[in-house]
Amino acid sequence: MTRRVCFTMQLQRDRIADYLAAHETVWPEMREALSETGWSDYSLFVRESDGLVVGYLVTDDFDRARARMAEQEVNARWQATMAPYFESSEDPDRSMVSLEEYFHLA
Amino acid sequence: MTRRVCFTMQLQRDRIADYLAAHETVWPEMREALSETGWSDYSLFVRESDGLVVGYLVTDDFDRARARMAEQEVNARWQATMAPYFESSEDPDRSMVSLEEYFHLA
Repeated sequence: MTRRVCFTMQLQRDRIADYLAAHETVWPEMREALSETGWSDYSLFVRESDGLVVGYLVTDDFDRARARMAEQEVNARWQATMAPYFESSEDPDRSMVSLEEYFHLA
Repeated sequence: MTRRVCFTMQLQRDRIADYLAAHETVWPEMREALSETGWSDYSLFVRESDGLVVGYLVTDDFDRARARMAEQEVNARWQATMAPYFESSEDPDRSMVSLEEYFHLA
C-alpha cells in the first residue's frame, strides 16, 4: 500500500541560493538511485524567506526507502556535498523531520 | 498543465491537538467544494513539535483554485472555525506562504 510522506529540513539562510543552484544539476545516478529504492513522485520545495525545505513523496514503505537509499554509494557522495548548506552539521538525511498527514482529498 | 503546489501555515502551539481533532470530521460540503474548485490530491501534514502545517496539492492553476474556493460560502464558514487555531489572526487562507519546487522525480 502506497502512502504519502512529507518531511522538513532546514537550510542555513545564507546558503539558500547556492543550494538551489546545486539542484539545477542533480546527478542522473542520484535520480536513478532514488527511483530504484522506491522514491516516487518526489518533490522538494523551499520557503525562500528562511530556507525551510519540504519534501513530498509517495512510497510503499518510507523507512525501507530511506534505509535502501542510505546504502547507496552515490547517496553518500551527494549528501556530503549537500551537508554544508544545512543547519545541522550532520548528514542531511539524518536531520529530516517526518510530518503527520491528517487530511487527504483524492 | 497541472502543477504541484506546496504551502505552509502556522498553528498556535497550544492549539495543535484541538485543530487536529477538528480535522477528523471535515464537512463533506467542504471536501466537495475543494474538488469542484480544482484542488486535487490535496494533503495536509503537521509537524507536531511546533505546529507547522504543510499543504500539498495538484492543480491546473493555484491562483484560480484559491480564488474560486474563496468565493464558496462553505469555505467562509470553515475558515471562521479554523482561524482561532492559527498564529495569524487573519483568515487562515490569507496566511498561506507558497513554496517553490526546485526538484521533482516522477
